[in-house]
Amino acid sequence: MIKYSLFFDTHDLAALMERAFDALNNERQKGISGYYDLPFSSMRLLERIQSYPHIKKIAIIGIGGSSLGTKAIYELLKHRIHHKEIIFLENPDPIDLEDKFAQIKKNETLFIVISKSGTTIETISIFKAAIKHFDLDLQNDDLIFITDPGSPLEKLANDNNILTYNIPPNVGGRFSVLSAVGVVPLTIAGFDTENLLLGAQKLVRDFFDRNADHILAKAAFYYQHYPAIKMNVLFSYSSMLADFNRWYEQLWGESLGKKRGDERIGLTPIAHIGSIDQHSFLQLLIEGPLDKSVTFLRVKEFRNHIKIPSISLPYLERTDFVNGHTFNELINKECEATMESVKAQGVPVDLIEIGSINAKNMGELIIYYELLTSALGALFEINTYNQPGVELGKKILTRLF
Amino acid sequence: MIKYSLFFDTHDLAALMERAFDALNNERQKGISGYYDLPFSSMRLLERIQSYPHIKKIAIIGIGGSSLGTKAIYELLKHRIHHKEIIFLENPDPIDLEDKFAQIKKNETLFIVISKSGTTIETISIFKAAIKHFDLDLQNDDLIFITDPGSPLEKLANDNNILTYNIPPNVGGRFSVLSAVGVVPLTIAGFDTENLLLGAQKLVRDFFDRNADHILAKAAFYYQHYPAIKMNVLFSYSSMLADFNRWYEQLWGESLGKKRGDERIGLTPIAHIGSIDQHSFLQLLIEGPLDKSVTFLRVKEFRNHIKIPSISLPYLERTDFVNGHTFNELINKECEATMESVKAQGVPVDLIEIGSINAKNMGELIIYYELLTSALGALFEINTYNQPGVELGKKILTRLF
Repeated sequence: MIKYSLFFDTHDLAALMERAFDALNNERQKGISGYYDLPFSSMRLLERIQSYPHIKKIAIIGIGGSSLGTKAIYELLKHRIHHKEIIFLENPDPIDLEDKFAQIKKNETLFIVISKSGTTIETISIFKAAIKHFDLDLQNDDLIFITDPGSPLEKLANDNNILTYNIPPNVGGRFSVLSAVGVVPLTIAGFDTENLLLGAQKLVRDFFDRNADHILAKAAFYYQHYPAIKMNVLFSYSSMLADFNRWYEQLWGESLGKKRGDERIGLTPIAHIGSIDQHSFLQLLIEGPLDKSVTFLRVKEFRNHIKIPSISLPYLERTDFVNGHTFNELINKECEATMESVKAQGVPVDLIEIGSINAKNMGELIIYYELLTSALGALFEINTYNQPGVELGKKILTRLF
Repeated sequence: MIKYSLFFDTHDLAALMERAFDALNNERQKGISGYYDLPFSSMRLLERIQSYPHIKKIAIIGIGGSSLGTKAIYELLKHRIHHKEIIFLENPDPIDLEDKFAQIKKNETLFIVISKSGTTIETISIFKAAIKHFDLDLQNDDLIFITDPGSPLEKLANDNNILTYNIPPNVGGRFSVLSAVGVVPLTIAGFDTENLLLGAQKLVRDFFDRNADHILAKAAFYYQHYPAIKMNVLFSYSSMLADFNRWYEQLWGESLGKKRGDERIGLTPIAHIGSIDQHSFLQLLIEGPLDKSVTFLRVKEFRNHIKIPSISLPYLERTDFVNGHTFNELINKECEATMESVKAQGVPVDLIEIGSINAKNMGELIIYYELLTSALGALFEINTYNQPGVELGKKILTRLF
C-alpha cells in the first residue's frame, strides 16, 4: 500500500490533466515508449531466468540507466532477506574499481554486462578490465549480456554462446529497470521480482483506468507553476532510499531537461535524505526563495521496532519526550514535523507514504515516478525519452584520446 | 597541490571582491566566526589526543555538521591506508541502526558522541539506544564527548569523568570539521590530521595575504549573476567524493539560504558524481535553462594505474580508442570532455584539480569551500552562520509526541 496526498490546490487543472492523460494513452497505444507494458511483458521473462546455485555474487557492469534502478531496488529490499550480493561496477574510477575487483572471486561470481547501445564506453572498458583481471573465458565463464536486439554486444554474444536478454528498443535506459535490466539480476539474486512487477502492474492499470488521477494532478500543478517553481525536491526519510534518490534524479533530469525549438525547458531534480538533511538542506527550503516543490517520501512501518529506551540522562532531560517510542515513530514524526514547517512557508508539498518496504510497493513506486515524468514531458511537449544533449561530450571524448 | 581555474569573465568584479575580502577579514578579526583559525588552533589539539591501541572501530554518534565533514574526509583518505574503521550512527532510521549496531563489538569500539548543542534529538536518542544495546557503562567504557563548553552533554561528562573535547562556541556545526569534531576521530583512526590542518593553514594564509583572490572572484561572479543563476552544481569525478558532495550541500544550502529582512535569498547546491551522472544530470545541464553554474572537481593522479587492456572485441572495435590507457586517464578525459560540452552552452564553469588525494589537499579543499561560502554570505549581507529556519520543525516535533 502506498498512499499519495497532495497538499496544494488542484482546482482548475482538469483540462491539463486530460491533455496529459490523452498524450500518455497515445504513447502507450502507439508504442512510443514501451515502458508502460514492461510490468506485464516482463512476467514472461521470469520463466526464462535460470537459477545459479553455485553463484554467490553478481557483478553488474553497467552505468546510468543500466545500474541506477537495480541499485535503488537492491538497497531497499536487501535487508534481512537471504540473497546473493550484487556488486555494481559502474564508475570508471580506478580506486572504486580496485576496491570492487578485490571483493570478487571469479568462480562464485556471475558477470552481467548491461548496455542498451552495446557500446557504452565506461561499461565496455570495465568489461575489458574484468576480462583481463579475472581471466574471463567468454565461452565458458558465467556471463550474461543485456542489450538492445542486434546491438554489437549481442553480436559478440551470439558468436560466443553468451546468454543474452534484450531491452525492448522503445524502452530507454532510465525507464528500463522493469525490463531484463533490473528483472534478470534481481531475480537471480533471489528477490521477489514477481511481486515487483505485480505492484507496478496495479498502478499502470489504475492509471489508465483513471483511478490514479493524483499523478495527473501533480504533473499539471508542476506544469502550471513552471518556471516560478522549477526545482523539485524529493525528501526521502530512510537511509535505504539514497539510491532511489539517485534513480529519481536521473529519470527526472534526463527526461525533463530539453530544448523545445529554441527554448530551454527544465525541471531540476534535487534529492535528500531525512532526517539527516534536516540538518542540511532544510534551512534553504524554509527561508530561501519559493522556487521549489517538495515531495516527502516516508516508510510507515520499518521491519524492526528498536526503541529509544526510557533512560533519563542528567542534564539531558529535555530529550526525554521521545523515550519509550520507536525509531520508526521518531523518523516518521520528524518527517511530519518538517513537512508542516515547510508547508507553513507556502511551499507546495506532497506526501508519499509507503506502508512497508516490500517488492510490491517498490514496483509501484518505480512506475509512479515514470508515469509522473511522462505526464510532465507530455505537458511540456518535449521528447521525454531521448537525451541528445549528451552526444557532444561523447564526440569530444574521442578527440581527446 | 590544487589548481583552480575560472572559465568565466571576472572583469569588473574588483569592487565586489574588496567588499567580500573586507567582510571576511572583519569576521576573522572580531571572531564573528571562529573557523578561520581552526587550522592553527587545532594543532594544539593533536597533542592532547591519546592513542587507543586496543580499539579497532570508532562509532561516531552525530548528525549533520557533527558527521558530514568527517565522513567526507574519511571516505577520501581511507583507501589503502591502515586505519581504524569509523562507523557513522547518524540517521534515526531503524534498519540502518540495526545494520550498524550489528557491525559493532563493544570491547573493541570507541564511542564518540558529537553534538554542538548537546541536546540534538537524533544523536541523544541513538546514544541512549547504544547505552542499552551495548550495556555501556558511562564511567568505564571507551567514550568521548565533543560538544560546546558548558553544554548539558559536557555537564553529563563531568559527572562521569568522560573525556570531552570542545567545539569553539563561534564555530557552527557545518564549519566545524577542522575542530575537535573531525580532528579527534580522524586522528584516533590513524589519519594524517597534521597535514590536513597544514593544507588548510596554507590556504587561509594565502587568502588573507591576497594570494587566493580567485575565491573572491568566484563569489563575486556568483553574486553578480544572482538570481538568474541560482543553482550551483558541483560535478565531482570520483566515487570517493560522494560524501564530500553531501558536505558541500550542507555547507552551501544551510549557509546561503536565508531571509534578509522580508526577502528570501538562496543559492541552491546540487552535487553529482562523474562519470556516472553524465548518464543522468548532464542532459539537463546541456539543454535545460541556463540557471546553473557548474564546478568540475577532479583528481589528476589516483593511487593506482589500472589500465583498460588492449583487448579488441569483435563488433566493439569503436570502443578501442581508449585501449591501453588507464582508468585514471579515462575518467579525467571524461571530465574534460563534459566540461567542454557544458561550456559550449554558455554555462559558467570552473575547474578544481586536486593533484592527488591526500590529507593536505583535503584540508585545503575543505577551507576553500568554507571561504567561498563566507564570501558569498558577506556579499549577500546575510548571516552565513545561523540556521533559524530549522527551529519551527523542532517545535512541531515536540508537539507530535
